[in-house]
Amino acid sequence: MPPPLEGDRPGCNPLQSCSALGAKESRVAQLRLHPDRALPAGDDIRAVARRIYQSTKGLPLLCMHGHVEAAVFADDEGFSDPAHLLVVPDHYVTRMLMSQGVPLADLGVPRVDGEAVETDPRQIWRRFCAHWHLFRGTPSRYWLEHEIAEVLKIDIAPGPDTADLLYDLIQARLAEPGFRPRALLDTFNIELISTTDPATSTLDDHARLAAAGFGARVIPTFRPDALTHVNAGGWAGRVRQLQEISGVDTGDYDGFLAALRSRREAFVLAGARATDHGHLTAAAEPLPPAEARRIYREACQGGVSAEAAAAFAGHLLFEMARMSCDDGLVMQIHPGVLRDHDDAIHAAFGSDRGFDIPVTAEFTRALRPMLNAFGRDPNFRLVLFTVDESVYSRELAPIAGVYPSVRLGAPWWFLDSPDGMRRFRELVTETAGFYNTSGFVDDTRAFLSIPARHDLARRIDAGYLARLVVEHRLSEEEAVETAADLAYRLPQQAYAPAGAGAAGRGDAGTEVSGLG
Amino acid sequence: MPPPLEGDRPGCNPLQSCSALGAKESRVAQLRLHPDRALPAGDDIRAVARRIYQSTKGLPLLCMHGHVEAAVFADDEGFSDPAHLLVVPDHYVTRMLMSQGVPLADLGVPRVDGEAVETDPRQIWRRFCAHWHLFRGTPSRYWLEHEIAEVLKIDIAPGPDTADLLYDLIQARLAEPGFRPRALLDTFNIELISTTDPATSTLDDHARLAAAGFGARVIPTFRPDALTHVNAGGWAGRVRQLQEISGVDTGDYDGFLAALRSRREAFVLAGARATDHGHLTAAAEPLPPAEARRIYREACQGGVSAEAAAAFAGHLLFEMARMSCDDGLVMQIHPGVLRDHDDAIHAAFGSDRGFDIPVTAEFTRALRPMLNAFGRDPNFRLVLFTVDESVYSRELAPIAGVYPSVRLGAPWWFLDSPDGMRRFRELVTETAGFYNTSGFVDDTRAFLSIPARHDLARRIDAGYLARLVVEHRLSEEEAVETAADLAYRLPQQAYAPAGAGAAGRGDAGTEVSGLG
Amino acid sequence: MPPPLEGDRPGCNPLQSCSALGAKESRVAQLRLHPDRALPAGDDIRAVARRIYQSTKGLPLLCMHGHVEAAVFADDEGFSDPAHLLVVPDHYVTRMLMSQGVPLADLGVPRVDGEAVETDPRQIWRRFCAHWHLFRGTPSRYWLEHEIAEVLKIDIAPGPDTADLLYDLIQARLAEPGFRPRALLDTFNIELISTTDPATSTLDDHARLAAAGFGARVIPTFRPDALTHVNAGGWAGRVRQLQEISGVDTGDYDGFLAALRSRREAFVLAGARATDHGHLTAAAEPLPPAEARRIYREACQGGVSAEAAAAFAGHLLFEMARMSCDDGLVMQIHPGVLRDHDDAIHAAFGSDRGFDIPVTAEFTRALRPMLNAFGRDPNFRLVLFTVDESVYSRELAPIAGVYPSVRLGAPWWFLDSPDGMRRFRELVTETAGFYNTSGFVDDTRAFLSIPARHDLARRIDAGYLARLVVEHRLSEEEAVETAADLAYRLPQQAYAPAGAGAAGRGDAGTEVSGLG
Repeated sequence: MPPPLEGDRPGCNPLQSCSALGAKESRVAQLRLHPDRALPAGDDIRAVARRIYQSTKGLPLLCMHGHVEAAVFADDEGFSDPAHLLVVPDHYVTRMLMSQGVPLADLGVPRVDGEAVETDPRQIWRRFCAHWHLFRGTPSRYWLEHEIAEVLKIDIAPGPDTADLLYDLIQARLAEPGFRPRALLDTFNIELISTTDPATSTLDDHARLAAAGFGARVIPTFRPDALTHVNAGGWAGRVRQLQEISGVDTGDYDGFLAALRSRREAFVLAGARATDHGHLTAAAEPLPPAEARRIYREACQGGVSAEAAAAFAGHLLFEMARMSCDDGLVMQIHPGVLRDHDDAIHAAFGSDRGFDIPVTAEFTRALRPMLNAFGRDPNFRLVLFTVDESVYSRELAPIAGVYPSVRLGAPWWFLDSPDGMRRFRELVTETAGFYNTSGFVDDTRAFLSIPARHDLARRIDAGYLARLVVEHRLSEEEAVETAADLAYRLPQQAYAPAGAGAAGRGDAGTEVSGLG
Repeated sequence: MPPPLEGDRPGCNPLQSCSALGAKESRVAQLRLHPDRALPAGDDIRAVARRIYQSTKGLPLLCMHGHVEAAVFADDEGFSDPAHLLVVPDHYVTRMLMSQGVPLADLGVPRVDGEAVETDPRQIWRRFCAHWHLFRGTPSRYWLEHEIAEVLKIDIAPGPDTADLLYDLIQARLAEPGFRPRALLDTFNIELISTTDPATSTLDDHARLAAAGFGARVIPTFRPDALTHVNAGGWAGRVRQLQEISGVDTGDYDGFLAALRSRREAFVLAGARATDHGHLTAAAEPLPPAEARRIYREACQGGVSAEAAAAFAGHLLFEMARMSCDDGLVMQIHPGVLRDHDDAIHAAFGSDRGFDIPVTAEFTRALRPMLNAFGRDPNFRLVLFTVDESVYSRELAPIAGVYPSVRLGAPWWFLDSPDGMRRFRELVTETAGFYNTSGFVDDTRAFLSIPARHDLARRIDAGYLARLVVEHRLSEEEAVETAADLAYRLPQQAYAPAGAGAAGRGDAGTEVSGLG
Repeated sequence: MPPPLEGDRPGCNPLQSCSALGAKESRVAQLRLHPDRALPAGDDIRAVARRIYQSTKGLPLLCMHGHVEAAVFADDEGFSDPAHLLVVPDHYVTRMLMSQGVPLADLGVPRVDGEAVETDPRQIWRRFCAHWHLFRGTPSRYWLEHEIAEVLKIDIAPGPDTADLLYDLIQARLAEPGFRPRALLDTFNIELISTTDPATSTLDDHARLAAAGFGARVIPTFRPDALTHVNAGGWAGRVRQLQEISGVDTGDYDGFLAALRSRREAFVLAGARATDHGHLTAAAEPLPPAEARRIYREACQGGVSAEAAAAFAGHLLFEMARMSCDDGLVMQIHPGVLRDHDDAIHAAFGSDRGFDIPVTAEFTRALRPMLNAFGRDPNFRLVLFTVDESVYSRELAPIAGVYPSVRLGAPWWFLDSPDGMRRFRELVTETAGFYNTSGFVDDTRAFLSIPARHDLARRIDAGYLARLVVEHRLSEEEAVETAADLAYRLPQQAYAPAGAGAAGRGDAGTEVSGLG
């Protein structure tokens, strides 16, 4: 149980600065973001890094892959309260609290088994604030500080003593019209944001967005995972859904593929630029058609071994690559995470509640069949992500450094952090260069953290480039140009629309020469 | 063979400073520890690091896991000579000398095959000093310099020319009463030190210590490895020993478990807080009871396959976790080392003579059964160690960052070093935070090196925290508080006594808010 | 297709400085190497690093392992043109261009299938210059800038606008007599350079070199790979070649071994100091002789499984170690690369065209049989290389830190880079020290890049040592001595001639105490 917290402070104007707290001042940490935060130490490097960062900080944000729901923008309603905005849906936050014994139910994480969970957002917020010290040194702290100070314009840090005050301040801020999702798209300078949608999505929210003139700014991403892992619970039902929405008979394997192809077309029409694939491994080995048909048939009958299911998933990954060559959707692979490590948590709370743990990743052998078939196809674009840093220099950089279809995605998940981003550049650049990376991809469901994440990426890239400048390995002029490419031009190119062809994607001879 | 060394220098007062060496001065390196040693370079960071370090350097030492023998304190006799104190028993030192061709026998390492080894400590010391340059850049050098300068108060560095002088100086120092083990406990500011004892230990030395009033200061750790690896030579004999000391019939598997349980109780009564488990892998998969019984029966009959033995070891690891939930002993796992890589060295010198080489470690899948069963049990505490750095960010930090029972131990063995400690914080903190680590664990058998190791850990943590401060990711006030937690409060909590319950261990809502 | 390039600039004297370009000046980057390049940032460290580097920069170059052809020195002809000197043969350069869609054929890479490739060196050079920005942050850029500025004495950076000018300037320079290979040996201060030669080489070029007085300066290395992988295409033909050149009947396994032994003798007579082995894994497990004979017999008949071929390769690696104990040739192992990942590129262009991708490496178990048999043999010397950085601290440093026969080679291939070299020292030194490493090994086929590579290694080592000095972990005097050992004395020792015996190799008691 958390320590007893003080009650509300009624005499305090919640939107006033914390200096108004008088006697409490000594325990209330002032929150001020330093302009040099996350830039490297050392006068020489920092001065250069500061100049490079200044040149990119104002560039528009391209959010080419993430998990904010389309409905958020289609509905454009205000956010309900601090807890349900910043704590409950953020698995980084709830897992850290869990790690020190705060039960997920006490944090309001909804259960799938019908048991009760905390419903009072203020209680949830207090529990979060009581454990604020746990986040020291973590990116969650970095995002949350940025959200509170920069986005919500409040200069008080969370903590046991500020929980209620901060709750009230945030709640008041969220009621302002400028804090509706669409308004924030402008505030955040977001040029484009991509949602992630199941293959069976009706894309209705995106249709509403298109009708409201947001069709080019909020686009879908095709995610077929729920259909490709044939031994996951409820698969048959989802295949029936696929048949319904596509109007294609999924009774056999060929129909299943045709239905997937048809959904991809619908996504392309709705503005999609990419697909997304979460698999346990990167295996992408095609099966003989007869074998694929047999496994599909058996899966429909409900009896397929784990081995067959894994082989079929790898086969479908290969087929998806083939489809990408046809329809131009950029393929994103996020492998190497063992989902739902704790069975009881999974049963009680459902998937992805913080107990997803990485395993060793392997790309060299796993991707070989796919890259042999499509790796030099000018219409194929593959963006690779990992949470296993040992593959950066060993496998990913060498692969991206030779196959023209491959770009390396930004540091993913646990690695989306200051030091994680720095290590990525250090381990990848010398073999793959800068121009075989995708530029920054935020991959978050925490909408309010998006500016913080892009801003941090620009700071870390500025710091890395500044080191190259100070070590006389790159001119400052080139560093400034490269920084802008990483922040803006490369994601634009890497996810160029399906119709843009090879040139739009920066292939063969197309110069990436900065924004100027 | 080492180069010829000069004889004794009779006219020289060994306790005098080396400046008295006159003409030899140019070849005798003065040994002076710089107050800023191991703090990061750069004026800005170093200034902050210095302040943080100042705030922790005087804190008492908690040595929650190590390998100094209880007899050392029970007997409280003076150390015999420099070689048998600093060279012969230190496998880091003997392995480095071995690596450049100095035979272990020439270093006085005792043989188990009865062959002769060097017995003259001065000769051993000379061989060590002749190769002092080999230790450049290694932690052994760091410890040894600290031991000589800070503990022994001698300002001469080892080297071919100082061997005899230094030998005499150290020998003279060791004869002083202040250099007896119990006196050094005070000198070193050691509040508590834990030994490591086989499950079959009589704990007589600990009884003698308790009688002398040292029972709470020197405590045992329960190490059952010699009993859990059923195909290791001499296993049956050790099981008979277990039966004798426990008074429980070990004739079958259930008796064996009961005997282990009984020994754990005896350890708890003697003050133990933890168990320790060295396994080739972290596998902790329970067997069906009938299968466990069968393997045990076959092992008693002397015929068990390597596979069955490994499965049984993994099963017992799981059972030990279950017992920890009952008796509250903290469970420590040290996996991933292939012991006794060189068969001939093993045959001649016995185990652990420097030829132990790490292999790839895997935790995500290996620990899943154990964590599913006990990972959220408030009475279970698991501390994980590794010598495979690739698992820090990939597996260990995500596991410790969500399972409330898990803490990450300090960098172990080869990684117990300045850069090793720094990388640990860099790779772990962003996902697991600071408060899911155990704080510093020295894990050494070199008693005189203990202050050096704790001091270095405080310096490296100060340096890491100072970087966060200078990069404006943490306030200096928080950094100072965190540094004290890492140095003192976290090990205290992580290894809280069995009776302390969840609160003493810092679980659910218990604040860790610094020492102040 | 590359962007349109401007034509020649006829009025421009190609050997004049680029400041003569007048109006073009703003787009033509001046190329000036900064004296502090690649030294660490920070005034304190850099000042120390500069002094350490100054002490080693003038030492002679020992190129103990590389891939420059003996014929280059035997023929001593001038280099034909910039493209065929700096682009076409450098797989680092062609792979990066390939990764952004420039076909290998457009870069003049010769095809083995008879199809046409670009033959105009100026066109190739233009394509390379048009993509110069791709090399930002890569070691290729570092080498190329050094080659252009320091070796060719031209102060213009490559780029779309300078392609033709630079081509003409380089072409003019290459025509000068001082740019013949033998002259460059002097210019580069190369004391010794080792080529790599198939076991079936006639060594004719080396004989010509010996006749010309270059026998001790350009020496061969014995590479038997083409004979040890029995299921590689054309193996039988190469075995017949072996029989011819050795005069030993290779009809059975024993004859095959005898023929290999005979070739090793021929290499030793020609001055060879080492062998080189590129295997997919480091497995070195001996087979029962009958089994080895059986596989060899089946291989001669053309029908051997992949498993049997792999087992035979591991067996031969073990046998080669045994032969090294006899003839004293230093054994080098370069494992862990999956060659020719793209089948179509392999079929069209042959082996090693940039599509070689690393896989996980494993040394602890793989080398155990070899190290058990020969690891403490005073006549055996094994130098290990890797492209999997995760084994540095986990396996390689512990192995080299105890087995007297083992030295760790310099960072290899993709890791032969500024940050790669730095990480090597950081990850290896604390366990293995400096004196269990081989010193710098350039391993390049780009002759003109050799001074740049050695110079960079000296800079990075100076930077690493300077950090130890500034962190008060090493005295500057020791750092200077160690730097010279790393640059010169250690490679000299690690590859001491077969006849030099243990002493020459720095074993047992032989001091490495700097050059002074």
